[in-house]
Amino acid sequence: MGSWSEFGERFTRRTGARELMDDLGAALASDHQISMLGGGNPAHIPELEAVFVTELRRVVDDEREYRRMLANYPSPVGEERFRATLAELLANEYGWKLSARNIALTNGSQASFFMLFNLLAGRQSGGGFKRILFPLTPEYIGYEDVGLSEGMLTALKPGIEEIDARTFKYHLDFDALAIGDDIAAVCVSRPTNPSGNVLTDGEIDRLVELAAASDVPLIIDNAYGLPFPQILFTDIRPVWNDNIIMCMSLSKLGLPGLRTGIVVANEEVVEALGAMNSVLSLAVPTVGAVLLQELVASGRILEISREIIQPFYARKVQEALNWVHEYLEGTNYRVHKPEGALFLWLWFPGLPISSDELYRRLKARDVLVLSGHHFFPGFDEPWRHRDECLRVTYSQDSESVRVGISAIADEVRRACLAA
Amino acid sequence: MGSWSEFGERFTRRTGARELMDDLGAALASDHQISMLGGGNPAHIPELEAVFVTELRRVVDDEREYRRMLANYPSPVGEERFRATLAELLANEYGWKLSARNIALTNGSQASFFMLFNLLAGRQSGGGFKRILFPLTPEYIGYEDVGLSEGMLTALKPGIEEIDARTFKYHLDFDALAIGDDIAAVCVSRPTNPSGNVLTDGEIDRLVELAAASDVPLIIDNAYGLPFPQILFTDIRPVWNDNIIMCMSLSKLGLPGLRTGIVVANEEVVEALGAMNSVLSLAVPTVGAVLLQELVASGRILEISREIIQPFYARKVQEALNWVHEYLEGTNYRVHKPEGALFLWLWFPGLPISSDELYRRLKARDVLVLSGHHFFPGFDEPWRHRDECLRVTYSQDSESVRVGISAIADEVRRACLAA
Repeated sequence: MGSWSEFGERFTRRTGARELMDDLGAALASDHQISMLGGGNPAHIPELEAVFVTELRRVVDDEREYRRMLANYPSPVGEERFRATLAELLANEYGWKLSARNIALTNGSQASFFMLFNLLAGRQSGGGFKRILFPLTPEYIGYEDVGLSEGMLTALKPGIEEIDARTFKYHLDFDALAIGDDIAAVCVSRPTNPSGNVLTDGEIDRLVELAAASDVPLIIDNAYGLPFPQILFTDIRPVWNDNIIMCMSLSKLGLPGLRTGIVVANEEVVEALGAMNSVLSLAVPTVGAVLLQELVASGRILEISREIIQPFYARKVQEALNWVHEYLEGTNYRVHKPEGALFLWLWFPGLPISSDELYRRLKARDVLVLSGHHFFPGFDEPWRHRDECLRVTYSQDSESVRVGISAIADEVRRACLAA
Repeated sequence: MGSWSEFGERFTRRTGARELMDDLGAALASDHQISMLGGGNPAHIPELEAVFVTELRRVVDDEREYRRMLANYPSPVGEERFRATLAELLANEYGWKLSARNIALTNGSQASFFMLFNLLAGRQSGGGFKRILFPLTPEYIGYEDVGLSEGMLTALKPGIEEIDARTFKYHLDFDALAIGDDIAAVCVSRPTNPSGNVLTDGEIDRLVELAAASDVPLIIDNAYGLPFPQILFTDIRPVWNDNIIMCMSLSKLGLPGLRTGIVVANEEVVEALGAMNSVLSLAVPTVGAVLLQELVASGRILEISREIIQPFYARKVQEALNWVHEYLEGTNYRVHKPEGALFLWLWFPGLPISSDELYRRLKARDVLVLSGHHFFPGFDEPWRHRDECLRVTYSQDSESVRVGISAIADEVRRACLAA
């Protein structure tokens, strides 16, 4: 054994996402205190957990619901009833014209992206090769490795707006954006993992137009956005149409163990995802679909997102931001304006060590963060900024976050002093 | 949109497995009575469901267990505690030398096979091309489509033993078996889906030896076997060693909605599966691992399999077999000796229509079965036997099974009369 295929070699490489998941797994298994500011694990919000526990009890007490949740294979495109109910919620809430046939469930968002990117990009059946374009990096670490072929991703550098001495915001550089014939789809996360950026309504409208004009789909990764979980600190208007593939997930609602991704797209894409689900995993889990059914049907999921989840994270991000300004005072740091998602994105202009080295030094102190260089899928130009940033999860318990940010400040100071 | 990549075209083809899953989904959504004898949905056994409901209540009542089940990302190779506990059970029960590092969890068995087949076979990194060998067809329908490249599967015809006038059993034809340099792995399901065959201990021992001598892994798909769920009607000795990749699942325990596959293999393979899990879906569901934890830790899962599951299916298969002999009397039929799994495999020697046509005629009468021709992955020779068989699920409610078998008898008679 031990001789893998080409695919095997490619898909067993040590990747940034793998490092993250291994760090998480090891930390969960560890018996000493680790500041886990590296992963995207959602917070444990007792008020929210109480809601899910009530729903789970309801299912357990009802034989039909129990069987629907655990004991039956759903159709390959995902549990029918939930897909219809969610379509109705989105149609009512935003006026979008859609039905169950516009919704596919998957084994989580990572699986959605594996299927979507490879469905659209790579070697084309008529010859030629197409790529996924990320018009604004930094972007999500998990996109990097999903391509079945090398070179399937391409990306642009952002514009940087200095909001104040300590705060900046990335913007989409439309002057550099050209959607050529080699582009299979344009993809953005909004809110953006890792930076907490939220593309403005104006930026999104323009992207929607450009993608339509070039006849390529626009993929919007909406894992943190509207209508749930609403980990979002700015007002935006969500958009969807037949040319937009919107990806959502139950993970950031606090349910990552369920592995439920949601894709809202035209019927052709949804049908293709069902076909791929059936070959790749026969069916996808029904647990999340049945657990969320009543909350989505009644619209309570909107209330819960607005009244429990959003305020919780809004408090947490402010608290973390205060520590950043307190502890990093005197160093040369910037923080991306936190507009959504679970992360603070710190930038240390002129840092004398790489962010990857900073990651290693922090890990040695039991503080797990992620180095910024992992978050440039498809971007190959040399750019110092890539090695000057850290992604810091602020969603964990406050003491871990405080200890972690304090350690970051320590290590940044030490690196600067040594230089 | 609508122009897929090469991968997209390949993985959105209409396949036998897709047909099966669509039939299942449509039947579940339908409001009139359908005899669903096509799918592999396990039976709803109230006594067994009561056990799982109790376990689920225990988890819901315990905040730590709740979080472990729903609210945390596990490591990419699967929930650590369950992997260690299951390794212990297998080691105690069978004396195998293994630990948590020999167990990977996946998004269900189909996902296990997607990963394993493509990890081992297809284009090799050093050049060349390798294939998966099924030494005995008919074999599981889901294997057919998982190859990322065409031509990744190859297969042999079985020997047919006539046990009595109405009963036959497939045997592995060792004279035809050669494991050449182009073979990446040998794969069998035991009990076999679709035929209900169980390779004898002698056959397995010989396969184990031949695979080791050729330095290729032997993959044993143990979805129905020991130690759970034990849908098995013959005495066998399970085997595992460092060169055997044993695949298991929670689905046939009655939990297909959880999508939990289990792979028991050497550490190198387990490590590779973890890496692939992280790229393909970040993590796999934790629900099954946490739900089963106490049942596996206490060994009760063995009792449950032996005292609830095995006797339930043993009764069901005998009941179905009686109907087969009653209703098909006077036609030219044979049935494979049912030694395990959820299916009766019927053979109609000289049937004047193809089994696929028989499937369509039955579907028009609201009886869903599967045509035998889907179950020859990698087998390309013309062989009439392939088009003379049906797979009939006997695990559904008795009246559906009776009605379905009666309809099969009707249609077989009608086809013979018309010829």
